[in-house]
Amino acid sequence: MIRVIRSIGQMKDLSLRIKKAGKTIGFVPTMGYLHDGHISLVSMARQACDIVVVSIFVNPKQFGPGEDLKKYPRDFSRDKKLLMKAKADIIFYPAVKEMYPDGYRTNVYVSDLSGKLCGASRPGHFNGVTTIVAKLFNIVKPDTAYFGQKDFQQQVIIKKMARDLNMGVKISALPTIRERDGLAMSSRNAYLSKVERKNAPVIYRSLKFANQLIKSGVKSSTAIRSAITKLIKSKPGFKIDYIAVSDPETLEDKKTINGRTLVAVAVYLGKTRLIDNIVVR
Amino acid sequence: MIRVIRSIGQMKDLSLRIKKAGKTIGFVPTMGYLHDGHISLVSMARQACDIVVVSIFVNPKQFGPGEDLKKYPRDFSRDKKLLMKAKADIIFYPAVKEMYPDGYRTNVYVSDLSGKLCGASRPGHFNGVTTIVAKLFNIVKPDTAYFGQKDFQQQVIIKKMARDLNMGVKISALPTIRERDGLAMSSRNAYLSKVERKNAPVIYRSLKFANQLIKSGVKSSTAIRSAITKLIKSKPGFKIDYIAVSDPETLEDKKTINGRTLVAVAVYLGKTRLIDNIVVR
Repeated sequence: MIRVIRSIGQMKDLSLRIKKAGKTIGFVPTMGYLHDGHISLVSMARQACDIVVVSIFVNPKQFGPGEDLKKYPRDFSRDKKLLMKAKADIIFYPAVKEMYPDGYRTNVYVSDLSGKLCGASRPGHFNGVTTIVAKLFNIVKPDTAYFGQKDFQQQVIIKKMARDLNMGVKISALPTIRERDGLAMSSRNAYLSKVERKNAPVIYRSLKFANQLIKSGVKSSTAIRSAITKLIKSKPGFKIDYIAVSDPETLEDKKTINGRTLVAVAVYLGKTRLIDNIVVR
Repeated sequence: MIRVIRSIGQMKDLSLRIKKAGKTIGFVPTMGYLHDGHISLVSMARQACDIVVVSIFVNPKQFGPGEDLKKYPRDFSRDKKLLMKAKADIIFYPAVKEMYPDGYRTNVYVSDLSGKLCGASRPGHFNGVTTIVAKLFNIVKPDTAYFGQKDFQQQVIIKKMARDLNMGVKISALPTIRERDGLAMSSRNAYLSKVERKNAPVIYRSLKFANQLIKSGVKSSTAIRSAITKLIKSKPGFKIDYIAVSDPETLEDKKTINGRTLVAVAVYLGKTRLIDNIVVR
């Protein structure tokens, strides 16, 4: 039986007992509405750790004004079934008031990294992410926490935070899981209309094309950006938020492509914001 | 024998071993150049906990440009002797590069509270404090951490941080220790000239006078501030930074005095910044 815990105090006590028994905790923080990307993280935690904790919390702090906090998809009973099937042990499922009681005032932020890429379009977003992840780490006390590479910038920032603040949590970033047609799995894919869904795979196709161009010797990031833009714009309904050609660690823009390179894309397809990326070696 | 540890990794391992053995850790974070105020915190930790850890780290992040980081007094061998006498078990004494390696980027801050009182005169100061304390808590893993009430705002902010981020560390704030003539003990008292040192006790005298006024029915914070200013200015060499009459929890200014009230003073005596406070019940 999977255990559902809603109180911070109970979760902390349970984690302490698990640690005192000498067992390891693998942790997958999520906002729920789980897909195979999340489940792949749970499976990895299941293989590597004694106890698997999954949190489900739609974190208001990481949504900006006018973003999709209210309509963000939620379905706890479906999530619970998926997590039982994936053999998770504990679901930590706190209310917003439990995590952010009245008078809440503390923030964790990672400078430089948080203002680039998605951080430029979504000011405050990553501060919301690092704050909630710091809280969750303190509550759940994981040995290893699992994140998806689809949110590439997120895992870079969380690794930095964990190292800088000496949290003693290992951050494991796992490959993006995709639909058969290449679209990166995301809870936000549920927003797409039938036509949008049909056109969405062009995002990943454009990344694969960029990969080919780089492998064939293209060194100019401007050329790469143009090629991606052109391919995505060949389909209707897209607005490009950014196309970044960057260092995968510092997230600094690269003008000339050399060494490991992150190619990351954020687009609006209708009203839905979608992101994807590849790292070219 | 007292143990001196300079590496974060070693301190973390040792703390983990102590916790696994079921022992409690009492922690006193300091910037060294210890005085009886620090020692009273160590004594309390000694009484309440199995293992007492004291950190000595002059934290550059909490000093502003033009402040006294470089000349801040340091004397490790003297501190070590005092801590042996006080029966501390472990001194954690890391280098600056160990705590803030190249590329360090993460900050912890408590909004609202950090901008008031000392935070208004020392922008960034409390962000430096909360960041280093968050790191130290993660490294040392204390059950209880001890702070002095002389730095009243500091302990308010650290309590808030520990609660907000679910750190699981109890914060114990202990009364200010004073010289015989009433001057609050502070490592910065070492900066005072003979004449300044002779005049310094007027700070605490002015706070005691404020206490009397409030007890005798004065309700106007303006009247209290005037009385304190007048008394302090009766001695030469003082420049008042602020006099606050505030709520001891929110640190909000009180116009009319009612309930528990914090009266806090920051002055420059020559070039030395001194602070002191009382809470009137």
